Amino acid sequence: MADFTTTIETTIETLLEQKKYNSLRDILSTINPADIAALFEDLPHNKLPLLFRLLPKELAAESFVEMDGDLQEELIRGFSDNELKEVIDELYLDDAVDLVEEMPANVVKRILTQADAETRRLINEMLKYPEDSAGSIMTTEYVDLRPDMTVSEAIKHIRRTGIDKETVNVCYVTDASRNLTGVLSIRDLILSSDDTEIADVMSPNVISVNTLEDQETVASMFAKYSFTALPVVDGENRLVGIVTVDDAIDVIQEEATEDIEKMAAITPSDKPYLKQSVFSIFKSRIPWLLLLMISATFTGAIITHFEDSLSAYIVLVASIPMLMDTGGNCGSQSSVTIIRGLSLHEISFSDTLRVVWKEFRISILCGVTLAIVNFFKMLLLGQATSLVAMVISLTLIFTVIMSKMIGCLLPIAAKRIGFDPAVMASPIITTVVDAMSLLIYFEIARAILKI
Amino acid sequence: MADFTTTIETTIETLLEQKKYNSLRDILSTINPADIAALFEDLPHNKLPLLFRLLPKELAAESFVEMDGDLQEELIRGFSDNELKEVIDELYLDDAVDLVEEMPANVVKRILTQADAETRRLINEMLKYPEDSAGSIMTTEYVDLRPDMTVSEAIKHIRRTGIDKETVNVCYVTDASRNLTGVLSIRDLILSSDDTEIADVMSPNVISVNTLEDQETVASMFAKYSFTALPVVDGENRLVGIVTVDDAIDVIQEEATEDIEKMAAITPSDKPYLKQSVFSIFKSRIPWLLLLMISATFTGAIITHFEDSLSAYIVLVASIPMLMDTGGNCGSQSSVTIIRGLSLHEISFSDTLRVVWKEFRISILCGVTLAIVNFFKMLLLGQATSLVAMVISLTLIFTVIMSKMIGCLLPIAAKRIGFDPAVMASPIITTVVDAMSLLIYFEIARAILKI
Repeated sequence: MADFTTTIETTIETLLEQKKYNSLRDILSTINPADIAALFEDLPHNKLPLLFRLLPKELAAESFVEMDGDLQEELIRGFSDNELKEVIDELYLDDAVDLVEEMPANVVKRILTQADAETRRLINEMLKYPEDSAGSIMTTEYVDLRPDMTVSEAIKHIRRTGIDKETVNVCYVTDASRNLTGVLSIRDLILSSDDTEIADVMSPNVISVNTLEDQETVASMFAKYSFTALPVVDGENRLVGIVTVDDAIDVIQEEATEDIEKMAAITPSDKPYLKQSVFSIFKSRIPWLLLLMISATFTGAIITHFEDSLSAYIVLVASIPMLMDTGGNCGSQSSVTIIRGLSLHEISFSDTLRVVWKEFRISILCGVTLAIVNFFKMLLLGQATSLVAMVISLTLIFTVIMSKMIGCLLPIAAKRIGFDPAVMASPIITTVVDAMSLLIYFEIARAILKI
Repeated sequence: MADFTTTIETTIETLLEQKKYNSLRDILSTINPADIAALFEDLPHNKLPLLFRLLPKELAAESFVEMDGDLQEELIRGFSDNELKEVIDELYLDDAVDLVEEMPANVVKRILTQADAETRRLINEMLKYPEDSAGSIMTTEYVDLRPDMTVSEAIKHIRRTGIDKETVNVCYVTDASRNLTGVLSIRDLILSSDDTEIADVMSPNVISVNTLEDQETVASMFAKYSFTALPVVDGENRLVGIVTVDDAIDVIQEEATEDIEKMAAITPSDKPYLKQSVFSIFKSRIPWLLLLMISATFTGAIITHFEDSLSAYIVLVASIPMLMDTGGNCGSQSSVTIIRGLSLHEISFSDTLRVVWKEFRISILCGVTLAIVNFFKMLLLGQATSLVAMVISLTLIFTVIMSKMIGCLLPIAAKRIGFDPAVMASPIITTVVDAMSLLIYFEIARAILKI
């Protein structure tokens, strides 16, 4: 894909210089909107308004949607009012709402002025849904049928109105008071005979979500049920919109990125890495670093407290990093597994005991294996006497068990009290585990080595 | 959702006891296949063959596909040959292939015996594609049109054959030698007049993938282009199958889980956590733990080497955990950000310099902030003299810079030489950073404190 983009870029730049606009239009018309957006990012920005005007209207709108905010803003600022109106008219409502949410106030004002009254009303309505709710990602452009239509009437209805709908693959059936009463796929329509009533073809068991439902739940329903669209209803079960599968995919990727970032102690951001400023990345990383650095004060205090024991055996000091790292790694293995399980809904609070019992057995297997390998390694390399090696190996077993217990319990507890489990990943676990494993370590050392 | 499942479970168990099979059939018919599969997991397993027989044929097959391997195997072992044949006949080819891949040999033999000759041939053909390739996740049941058909002929064709197709939302156009020449959506068909030729409605620019393409690339194309299906062609551009969006979503979630597991030093597994045995989880975790534990030998050796300097100042020892943790956290922030960027194709090798320059500036901001806070914290708490506090704060700056450089460069380098960047996350980075930050630490301490 990358090579393809590079070659076509050169072609386009050359044709631009030669002012061969007809050929340019022909070439651009063969390219997919997502690729046009990528192309626009790379081409000299002063040429973009010209190129954009060369695109057929529908392709122009579709490509516009795929561009990132900065580029959209740049283009809008170059548009005449008329051009802006044309683009807005072509946009699906959910894309128009996304645009309004991202643009600065003065651009938003221009957009709303150019939109027709009905679109403006709908945009304003959609803007009221909370961020990351089903309402905020839905579109109101869906195919809406009545139960008493015949199949051929329904197909005629779709032919008349379908051009403006985001998808015709799934059609929804509502009664006179706009209650959602059925669903059928375009396949059901096409495979039925012309005079069948919709009520006889549709499936009356419709799975729907409320406008306020969290977008993560919406996305996981797509994964579970293999839907291509999901209806969104208000508090009175009236159909108000649909979420389409392409938006669900975006949510799935966004949520996975957010989880991963939180696990690495980064405050999540919507923007791709290369688009974020150094300072905004700094701001997303420094709070956790500061917090974790300061909480390491405890580990320092523990070491200072055991100063006398430590000065007797430098090997005890030398093993601190290994013990702390192993504890941290064990803890993050467990916490990350549990966090991912929770966010894919594979694990729930009622599984707590099963999880703990499983992690306990795993931690004994891991701890004993590590301890045995460490014991013989220390003796073979002559790093310690067998008594000291035993202290360190015993500590390993207890550290591994404790880390895995903390690693699996903290995320579940966080979820239970309404926090995001992803925050309970490696860095937090490491800090807790560090302090506790040092305490175990020095107590075992004191008991066995009598220091 | 969870509550719904619990209530219906009780109803079903009661009706089973009362042998009210007609009502049971009616209830089951209203439930979505994915929910039926979940229900079956929870109901007493000796009742499952009976319940399964109550399901309408199509729903039975669809629910069967949603169940996990163990349950499928149990049901198959209870099926008569005839029942097995009925289920297989209803399955889409890609689901049948998944089933054959998961079942033990003797069950596979029964399945292939009951499948008709053509299905058997197709299954065997699909089994030849490498694991995780486009070929292995595609289905061969797609709508195939000819360019010289009219729209009404095409709709008639879909009516005749569509019932067996996995999706009719997207139709593909092939010429006499099965070359892929165009694509059109069912919407294009419905919105066109009856006697238009397909060649005039279809879009001739079809984005397709080769059978051998990696499934991760396939999934990322769905995310990029908002497709609901993607055609798969062989080496001669002949259409051999399609990948549908529901399979792409599964791949996206699978790959995100794999990335997350690798970042936490876990060998990835296909199975959900609660389904894996303790020993198999142990096996997926212990290799990394062992490797990382043994590589911590270096940090131990460094500490031992600086024994004399350390015994002079216990505060230097007490700060080791804080320095190592901060280095590890900084490194994993960078590596995780870069790894996710690489896997979403937001960052490529050509961005290396931009990434390094960005991380360098971020690391200076983070390092200086942490150093200042640490310096004053140590003085205020009376933990160290200002000279020692300076040693530790200076080390912090260098450690943060070094960690972030290593954290961003290792994943890019891994990708460049063909390794999976996700493996270069926290645990590996921590181990490298630990050793290097200790070296920096002791050199600075020696220089400033003259020990």
